[in-house]
Amino acid sequence: MTRGDPAVVNALAAHRPVIAFDNAGVGRSTGETPDNVAAMARDAVDFINLLGLTEVDLLGFSLGGFIAQQIAAEHGPLVRKLILAGTAPRGGEEHLLAVLQEAFSDTDAPDPRLPLFFTKSSDSRSSGLEFLKRTKMRKDDRDTDSGSAVTDPQAKAVITWCATPDPEHAILRAIRQPTLVVSGSHDTMLPADNAYVMFKALSNAQLVLYPDSGHGALFQHHELFVSQVRTFLEA
Amino acid sequence: MTRGDPAVVNALAAHRPVIAFDNAGVGRSTGETPDNVAAMARDAVDFINLLGLTEVDLLGFSLGGFIAQQIAAEHGPLVRKLILAGTAPRGGEEHLLAVLQEAFSDTDAPDPRLPLFFTKSSDSRSSGLEFLKRTKMRKDDRDTDSGSAVTDPQAKAVITWCATPDPEHAILRAIRQPTLVVSGSHDTMLPADNAYVMFKALSNAQLVLYPDSGHGALFQHHELFVSQVRTFLEA
Repeated sequence: MTRGDPAVVNALAAHRPVIAFDNAGVGRSTGETPDNVAAMARDAVDFINLLGLTEVDLLGFSLGGFIAQQIAAEHGPLVRKLILAGTAPRGGEEHLLAVLQEAFSDTDAPDPRLPLFFTKSSDSRSSGLEFLKRTKMRKDDRDTDSGSAVTDPQAKAVITWCATPDPEHAILRAIRQPTLVVSGSHDTMLPADNAYVMFKALSNAQLVLYPDSGHGALFQHHELFVSQVRTFLEA
Repeated sequence: MTRGDPAVVNALAAHRPVIAFDNAGVGRSTGETPDNVAAMARDAVDFINLLGLTEVDLLGFSLGGFIAQQIAAEHGPLVRKLILAGTAPRGGEEHLLAVLQEAFSDTDAPDPRLPLFFTKSSDSRSSGLEFLKRTKMRKDDRDTDSGSAVTDPQAKAVITWCATPDPEHAILRAIRQPTLVVSGSHDTMLPADNAYVMFKALSNAQLVLYPDSGHGALFQHHELFVSQVRTFLEA
């Protein structure tokens, strides 16, 4: 469920089958992008079922992490282990619009993903430039860029998920699978406090927080992330 | 600086030189156990200097983690990397006496380290029994048990460190070394909130929190801990 960084997807795929997919309406997938996490989760479960898979490990990044939580909570037997990266619980803290606005008004940035995913330190910034290069590696069957027919309902889904109070953490408490929660120290979009909250409410979670990193912590610390994911899945 | 678990110390020592030592007055070390962290840190630095070492990686568990923080903050060039396990920042939260009292009044426990270091779950408890077996593996040159001439000043050092307010985190902010902070989800003595606080105040820290584990999280999850320590030290 994470798109975009070959350093993560290809490295994981070297050791196990990885299905990186675009949900309905996104990238080269047909259909309409829903504006809520529950519908996105239904689409993903339909996709998994249609592939004939009866048990999967789910890795969800950002909005994908909301969807992965929903699936793991509602479809226990379908999900063996869960990895939640750069994400938030229902009712969590988000600063999506403020961060997007700042990123897209940063005319010095070569790409809005630099301020969106990385910190202002020189280490993080140079990791970000490496990441941008990697996102251009694939030449064939590239995903199309998402227009507002995708990003508008996605933004609504993110904002609604975080605006839905869940003081008892009903979703997290329904997740019984071993879960790895990963976040960056300075994620401006979905702050690391979310990860700590998820860790505490989940019954069987390991938490890993990386230094000097933003929403794209898994891209910045990709070697460590891949190694920790592999150890977690193989344990 | 951690004693006791061959699964941790021997596994680390398989790949690098490890110096496990007892500070002044403890175990088979002569001298008097000081009642404060600053003096303990001076003793440890003297020991390192007398060995002729000019740069070391420090691993401090519990009270050892207080000492390791003090050393890393005050002796920057001496410490290359820092590992803080089951510990707390100056001014942090401790429940030492309450937990000790409960552990020593638990007459069903075969050893007070079981309730001190492990949770009440069956998984954690059986890890605890394995740990207790491991602590008896060594036959020669075993440390002597600590009497009150050791534990009283140690307890005073723990309580004083945590009772000393440090709202600006002067010690943590003086630590510039890469740091790995590790804690258990249900550490009753030095709760995991301490680890999260340390992670946030340190400039270059990775945080790892383990599921269903107490103060002895590094003993319970020893394979994962050793693997993460190795990855951290070799990065």
